[in-house]
Amino acid sequence: MTNLKNNRSIFFQNKIVYILDQTKLPFKEELYKSSTYQNTCFAIKNMLIRGAGSIGAAAGFAMMQASFEAPNYNRLNFLNNAKKIIEQTRPTAHDLFAAVERVYNKALSSNDEAEAEAQLIADETAEAGRLIGIHGNELIKTGSRILTHCNAGTLALVDYGSALAPIIHAHNSGKQIFVYVDETRPRNQGAKLTAWELNKFGVPHVIIADNAAGMLMADGKIDLIITGADRIAKNGDTANKIGTLEKAVLAKEFNIPFYIAAPFSTFDKTIETGKNIPIEIRDENEILTISGADITGKIHNIRIASPGSKAYNPAFDVTPSKYISAFITPKGILSSEELKKY
Amino acid sequence: MTNLKNNRSIFFQNKIVYILDQTKLPFKEELYKSSTYQNTCFAIKNMLIRGAGSIGAAAGFAMMQASFEAPNYNRLNFLNNAKKIIEQTRPTAHDLFAAVERVYNKALSSNDEAEAEAQLIADETAEAGRLIGIHGNELIKTGSRILTHCNAGTLALVDYGSALAPIIHAHNSGKQIFVYVDETRPRNQGAKLTAWELNKFGVPHVIIADNAAGMLMADGKIDLIITGADRIAKNGDTANKIGTLEKAVLAKEFNIPFYIAAPFSTFDKTIETGKNIPIEIRDENEILTISGADITGKIHNIRIASPGSKAYNPAFDVTPSKYISAFITPKGILSSEELKKY
Repeated sequence: MTNLKNNRSIFFQNKIVYILDQTKLPFKEELYKSSTYQNTCFAIKNMLIRGAGSIGAAAGFAMMQASFEAPNYNRLNFLNNAKKIIEQTRPTAHDLFAAVERVYNKALSSNDEAEAEAQLIADETAEAGRLIGIHGNELIKTGSRILTHCNAGTLALVDYGSALAPIIHAHNSGKQIFVYVDETRPRNQGAKLTAWELNKFGVPHVIIADNAAGMLMADGKIDLIITGADRIAKNGDTANKIGTLEKAVLAKEFNIPFYIAAPFSTFDKTIETGKNIPIEIRDENEILTISGADITGKIHNIRIASPGSKAYNPAFDVTPSKYISAFITPKGILSSEELKKY
Repeated sequence: MTNLKNNRSIFFQNKIVYILDQTKLPFKEELYKSSTYQNTCFAIKNMLIRGAGSIGAAAGFAMMQASFEAPNYNRLNFLNNAKKIIEQTRPTAHDLFAAVERVYNKALSSNDEAEAEAQLIADETAEAGRLIGIHGNELIKTGSRILTHCNAGTLALVDYGSALAPIIHAHNSGKQIFVYVDETRPRNQGAKLTAWELNKFGVPHVIIADNAAGMLMADGKIDLIITGADRIAKNGDTANKIGTLEKAVLAKEFNIPFYIAAPFSTFDKTIETGKNIPIEIRDENEILTISGADITGKIHNIRIASPGSKAYNPAFDVTPSKYISAFITPKGILSSEELKKY
């Protein structure tokens, strides 16, 4: 059984890459069909698919599609160019670069090898989520009240999820748990996606404004915090959705364990510290405007800020490893020191 | 000159209380006209007027209106009942209770005295803002990059503002400053109201997601933080808009001065610590839905969260005084120790 009831958030079938369009959720469940690498790049860039693991799988499939599309007379140039274009879609998630590299190297040999590698990346990512769920479940007790930020579920990791995998595993194994879901401005991945996933599995939860997390921690209403990650440096510094740093600092202040859940594809062994992680600055309209459904279900995009004002929109922040209690990985719960062995 | 160009955010004229309707801002500047105390209560409860000082002025005018409305045969009962109803509109802002008490005591003598007292409260509140601006300006240098949370401007304090008064004073006196405006979910008072006020005065600013404040602090991009307050306990613990605690803890972690600006009407000498401040829990729909303007200017209310999920919406949090560098008051910059003298 997979978290999406036998549907992954991204999969490849009959020469088409299918992506569950996350910009339409939670109001519509619609598959985006991509038959070119450029269309898959569009889906990554515009966040039809998002979350480090899912971005990695999508990038792998995009590189595979480029392999199919590459003309014989100009194959290497085409592949090199496609690689660059895919890498430019989202700069922060390490999974993207790792996946593109792997499929590119196979594409140098053959389309079949590229396809097998892209499929393997998706399968490995899903399996990593399954294992993260099993290990992370050990940290959760009956009665645990868990805070999570952004979406690190099936949608973000092909299947099972990273931060959500332990939560759903704990729930499915009969533990009584409660989840506080940061809405996660500006794109509301918590309110729109994490809440949608928790609803699917019947996990008791409530959405809060990101601003309320500190008060809940101060009041002793949070037992542990689990988030995903977009890139983790060698020393354990972790880039994740903007606001993660805030929650981690608050967790330390109020003595609450703060865990990062991630597959090994998110660990970037080429960089020493978080200072070297590039941070994506996204369009200001993600803050100044928002989309949602009116009572008839019709979608509107509206301005929610003073006309004439501008916004600054960094998509990620870096949480220094000193604020992170441990990492939930497919090989178990590891400290930042233990991470260095892998 | 007043900050609203000779218009206060609330004023009384020809037997009518005029309120600049903050639920219509920044898209429409519309005056709500209230000729009964019940209508003024509606405006407070539904946040047509908000911010501790403005709530206090509105509550004073409401109590004055009740005095006008009270029938001779049943005056005391009517006043007592009205007092209770006004006090139930918003439970956190101390200014409300202080103002109602003052006008109630005068209403026991005569309508004229009640009116004079209500007008005096509004005038005193405006004057407090002016003085806060002068004193707070001393903390701001040319080049200062200031973070503010929620709206503590003219809209929130009849005139001038609390947190915004020093900022606008500094700008008007020729200092080159830059303001980062927390959008302040769930009601976006930062993005909708503070940005609107800063635009009026031409103060350079940018709106950020509340989640981005921590990153800016960690990156050394914030020199000082100023917010308003809704109620301040004897020991300096301060209730203010949800999220203030988060910013204060982060400020301490990253060694950034964190100031609370408030008139003396916000200080509650009857309570020892923040633990005794009642926190208002507001409707979950403030998180699950939002209003804004489409490109034609038409206002829509849309759902921005997963259908089927609920939300938890505390409107305020309490920041312990240990996180507060000092208080900007009409009598100067005071430490929490010095506060006790006043």
